[in-house]
Amino acid sequence: MKIRPLADRVVIKMVEAEEKTKSGIVLPGSAKEQPQMAEVVEVGPGGVVDGKEIKMELKVGDKVLFSKYAGTEVKLDGQEFTILRQSDILAVVE
Amino acid sequence: MKIRPLADRVVIKMVEAEEKTKSGIVLPGSAKEQPQMAEVVEVGPGGVVDGKEIKMELKVGDKVLFSKYAGTEVKLDGQEFTILRQSDILAVVE
Amino acid sequence: MKIRPLADRVVIKMVEAEEKTKSGIVLPGSAKEQPQMAEVVEVGPGGVVDGKEIKMELKVGDKVLFSKYAGTEVKLDGQEFTILRQSDILAVVE
Amino acid sequence: MKIRPLADRVVIKMVEAEEKTKSGIVLPGSAKEQPQMAEVVEVGPGGVVDGKEIKMELKVGDKVLFSKYAGTEVKLDGQEFTILRQSDILAVVE
Amino acid sequence: MKIRPLADRVVIKMVEAEEKTKSGIVLPGSAKEQPQMAEVVEVGPGGVVDGKEIKMELKVGDKVLFSKYAGTEVKLDGQEFTILRQSDILAVVE
Amino acid sequence: MKIRPLADRVVIKMVEAEEKTKSGIVLPGSAKEQPQMAEVVEVGPGGVVDGKEIKMELKVGDKVLFSKYAGTEVKLDGQEFTILRQSDILAVVE
Amino acid sequence: MKIRPLADRVVIKMVEAEEKTKSGIVLPGSAKEQPQMAEVVEVGPGGVVDGKEIKMELKVGDKVLFSKYAGTEVKLDGQEFTILRQSDILAVVE
Repeated sequence: MKIRPLADRVVIKMVEAEEKTKSGIVLPGSAKEQPQMAEVVEVGPGGVVDGKEIKMELKVGDKVLFSKYAGTEVKLDGQEFTILRQSDILAVVE
Repeated sequence: MKIRPLADRVVIKMVEAEEKTKSGIVLPGSAKEQPQMAEVVEVGPGGVVDGKEIKMELKVGDKVLFSKYAGTEVKLDGQEFTILRQSDILAVVE
Repeated sequence: MKIRPLADRVVIKMVEAEEKTKSGIVLPGSAKEQPQMAEVVEVGPGGVVDGKEIKMELKVGDKVLFSKYAGTEVKLDGQEFTILRQSDILAVVE
Repeated sequence: MKIRPLADRVVIKMVEAEEKTKSGIVLPGSAKEQPQMAEVVEVGPGGVVDGKEIKMELKVGDKVLFSKYAGTEVKLDGQEFTILRQSDILAVVE
Repeated sequence: MKIRPLADRVVIKMVEAEEKTKSGIVLPGSAKEQPQMAEVVEVGPGGVVDGKEIKMELKVGDKVLFSKYAGTEVKLDGQEFTILRQSDILAVVE
Repeated sequence: MKIRPLADRVVIKMVEAEEKTKSGIVLPGSAKEQPQMAEVVEVGPGGVVDGKEIKMELKVGDKVLFSKYAGTEVKLDGQEFTILRQSDILAVVE
Repeated sequence: MKIRPLADRVVIKMVEAEEKTKSGIVLPGSAKEQPQMAEVVEVGPGGVVDGKEIKMELKVGDKVLFSKYAGTEVKLDGQEFTILRQSDILAVVE
């Protein structure tokens, strides 16, 4: 079973807390906007979104920072995912 | 009797809870936005919507994830449907 | 006496409750948005609306679903009508 | 003394209550939006409004329905008028 | 000392109450939007405003109606003025 | 040390209260919007802002009126400045 | 480990309080909008953002003023960063 995101959306999976500790990344919460680190697991096809051509810059496997308040959470085959627009991804961590 | 959606709208029917259990999909509710799984039963013709050309990517029979707060619910011949814009569909589940 | 809607507006008349029962249609109200079934009685000419060319897809006699919160109600010669934009019509029921 | 409306504005004068009774028109108020019947007394020149070309469709003498919450009321030489944009006129009554 | 308004702004000066009485104009206040009569004393150059070409239609000396809630009041050399955009002027009174 | 504003922003410095008294300018506060008089000390390069070409009309030394609620205050080398967009400047006083 | 911002975003690092004291810069907070001084540490590639071509004007090492309420804070390898759009940067301090 597979989630195929539409348009400029991507599906991401939260990176495990353990892994976060190993890489030394701490993502502090704020009352306003809490960033989160995740891995891209599916990338939509892009195309014309709201009358504008969107080119997908992300690829499967990218580690990304995104705002906690963006997107929609879904659970598939026991795993949690978030579906959000590429423009809600802040940065790739390399 | 048939609902013919206008423009970029689609008509979807909630997938039964039983079916959801079989496929192992659990759609957790959140205070902010609750996704839902449904099947597409009618697809509008697309065309120019708010001055922008919209091409319909969905087809009848697609299993889709959408936000619970999108669209309008209607009941026709004893069945419940939701009418919403294609852009409110997050992803197709295959 | 006749209501001639301007631009992309249409005039609709609620379908009687009796008729609704016969066709088996039940339109459940929700706190968020209550759809309604009506018949189109007048269609505006379309044309340029807010800088965008609007083509009228609806015709007199169409049975339509629309959101209860769209449009403006008027009473003419003892009958109640609603004037609303074509884009507030969700679907045609055939 | 004369009010010359700018751009896509029109000046309208409420139709007298007596006249309304004769024509059988009753305009019911709702908590959301109260339509009103009026006669067009001045029409602006149209032209480019907010970057978009507006063509005036209304003419002096048209009986129109409009939303009570649109426009601005003024009193000139003892008569009350409302100045509003053509797009706030819902329909012409013939 | 002189106020030179930028872009599509104009500077207006309220017409005296006495003058209003002579011309028979009464501008009734409403809870929603109170129109006001004033005289144009300075007109901006127009030009490209928010990406759109604005042509100035008003000229110094025009008597205008405007909404009380539009613009910014300033006091210069003991006189009060209002600076507002041309699009906030409803009509010219001739 | 120097503040170089980006895009269509300008840096302004409040004109001293004494100077205001000499020129006879009084800027009355209102609950809605309080204008302020200031001198332009830095002008951004203009260019494409939000997809629109902005040409800078202001120059260093201009005395300007602006809304108190526009822009961001900074203190540099003991002096207070405000950084705001050119479109938030209402007028030049000559 | 490195944060690669997407599109028109930049990564900035707050300038230390000590350094601020040395340069004589004091950034007063206001209830409305508190500016902050920071150094640019990563610059996104720019490109088409929301249908508009964005050219990056900032470069790594620029000292910038920005609004405290813009962007998202992240902590990487023990250091705090803010990711925000170039358009949220008010000025470069030289």
